[in-house]
Amino acid sequence: MTTKNRQILLVSRPTGEPTPDNFRMIESELSRPGKGQMLLRSIYLSLDPYMRGRMNAGKSYAPPVEIGQVMEGRAVAEVVESNAPGYQQGDVVFAPMGWQEFAVSDGQGVRKLDPAPRPLSYALGILGMPGMTAYTGLLNIGQPKPGETLVVAAASGAVGSVVGQIGHLKGCRVIGIAGGPDKCLFVKDELGFECLDHREPNLASRLEAACPKGIDIYFENVSGAVFDAVLPLLNNFARIPVCGLIAHYNATELPPGPDRVPLVMHQILVKRLTFRGFIVWDFASQMPQFLAEMSAWLREGRLKYKEDITDGLENAPRELIGLLRGENFGKKIIRVGEEVH
Amino acid sequence: MTTKNRQILLVSRPTGEPTPDNFRMIESELSRPGKGQMLLRSIYLSLDPYMRGRMNAGKSYAPPVEIGQVMEGRAVAEVVESNAPGYQQGDVVFAPMGWQEFAVSDGQGVRKLDPAPRPLSYALGILGMPGMTAYTGLLNIGQPKPGETLVVAAASGAVGSVVGQIGHLKGCRVIGIAGGPDKCLFVKDELGFECLDHREPNLASRLEAACPKGIDIYFENVSGAVFDAVLPLLNNFARIPVCGLIAHYNATELPPGPDRVPLVMHQILVKRLTFRGFIVWDFASQMPQFLAEMSAWLREGRLKYKEDITDGLENAPRELIGLLRGENFGKKIIRVGEEVH
Repeated sequence: MTTKNRQILLVSRPTGEPTPDNFRMIESELSRPGKGQMLLRSIYLSLDPYMRGRMNAGKSYAPPVEIGQVMEGRAVAEVVESNAPGYQQGDVVFAPMGWQEFAVSDGQGVRKLDPAPRPLSYALGILGMPGMTAYTGLLNIGQPKPGETLVVAAASGAVGSVVGQIGHLKGCRVIGIAGGPDKCLFVKDELGFECLDHREPNLASRLEAACPKGIDIYFENVSGAVFDAVLPLLNNFARIPVCGLIAHYNATELPPGPDRVPLVMHQILVKRLTFRGFIVWDFASQMPQFLAEMSAWLREGRLKYKEDITDGLENAPRELIGLLRGENFGKKIIRVGEEVH
Repeated sequence: MTTKNRQILLVSRPTGEPTPDNFRMIESELSRPGKGQMLLRSIYLSLDPYMRGRMNAGKSYAPPVEIGQVMEGRAVAEVVESNAPGYQQGDVVFAPMGWQEFAVSDGQGVRKLDPAPRPLSYALGILGMPGMTAYTGLLNIGQPKPGETLVVAAASGAVGSVVGQIGHLKGCRVIGIAGGPDKCLFVKDELGFECLDHREPNLASRLEAACPKGIDIYFENVSGAVFDAVLPLLNNFARIPVCGLIAHYNATELPPGPDRVPLVMHQILVKRLTFRGFIVWDFASQMPQFLAEMSAWLREGRLKYKEDITDGLENAPRELIGLLRGENFGKKIIRVGEEVH
């Protein structure tokens, strides 16, 4: 067995869009697991928009990655050696591995996975954090009712594609928004709901035409121009689960004025809107129900799911930069090592 | 009995702050009630910030007052003549009278009042729409819990004074914000919670010092500088019932940039805030519970309430303009006619 570990460190903080220079890959000696510890081998590393926030200094809902530390990331991994109670060699786990091939873990944040549902990478997507984000945010905050109109941006992405499909299952009229004709075609043909291309001109008027009865739920995961097009179309008592703001993640300053905060507050008041931010762990207790219901929908073929897999840990920086530009097509995964058999 | 009616019409729409020229008082012939109708005599007319919105053209949660129409307003009135089923001479009612001494009504929007709780004007304040606004918004959306910090602006006003006192009864630490030393003294000495004067410098740093454990509930009824001071102090999972935005009601354009909408959305996301707009009638079904609980608190002396009463319908325009400037001290009422005995 190898005695080396490859790791990707954060070596500087980006200003605006990250660059490859913000990362460095190093090779280090593999640590051995001590008492109560285990050695994990990464198989699939998940790349997600929240990682951009961790690259900034300053307070967010989680502390930043420090300079010189291994980049944060969640992965499907295999237990290769275990002194940890409850885990044995060959177990497949979900673990906060970071951007590296191996990690020594005391079990914190680790969760054993049922190895049956394949591919194992689904545990990072539709059966993992993005899927549960979509499920809990839409059902708890969006509260979809049959006949309502639901708008979701990044509609071909890991969260948006699940939001749209669950909304559809709940009887909503769903309008997705995505970037480019390929993604829109995928949403319409594979996911089965409407889709508008935000790269084409006149998004606001096309969205208005697509929502003749207004918008009851806007699942916010991009902000920016999509939010601006949605705001005037919101119906009384509309719900806006605020899940992500990818359009702003690379921003270094606020956009020019006027200051539209009074306008948004006025809309909240006169239309009695609910804006509610959340992260998936706010609904951690709903995980068993989420896994049961989503697995059933997948088995029955009622949910479709697309992955965008790139081989090789060394490509993670480039692929994260692309993800923040919307260049991925489906849930972005880095295959770090071979699947277990 | 008189055969004349005095009425105040909206004769032009204000740009920014209303002026006396936007109104005109006229004397007209008194109409007689037809079949199924009754004649009402106004006793107390309520002046409220929402009236500024009705003076604008354009869509809000209620249609505007048309040019040449009697200004909209709610009043405590006496039935002086009745052909309406269920009403008889001498009944005391709550009615959408408008700004006039007499009105013919078919009963729409009219509600019989228990004449026992005196003064009758309380039905326009603590036992009426402002009180119910405070009660329903705070309890349903704010969801106060013992030990939490509640901030309420316009803390000596009709809504704010009730919000603060109910928050106090529910075990919250309450920080009121009001304009001027007299109002702040009243809040501290009479209402029994802390108060900061927003006319003094450095509101943001004084508010921060007054809220060492952050802010869990911000009852929004002013916006503007108070909102700006509150935003950075909000705790995770803070609730913001959005009830009014008086600081913007006279605004003719948005403030200069930058556009802080992305900043507010970022706060909503990372702190998992809930902003929810409401108007009192969204909780109409809670009126019996509201009346029972508030009446009991008043009887037991656990709630204090201050009115600011001006005699004479002719003074309503001037007093509404003053109300929008924060010149009233307590719930603003116009005494249009004598109380019943």
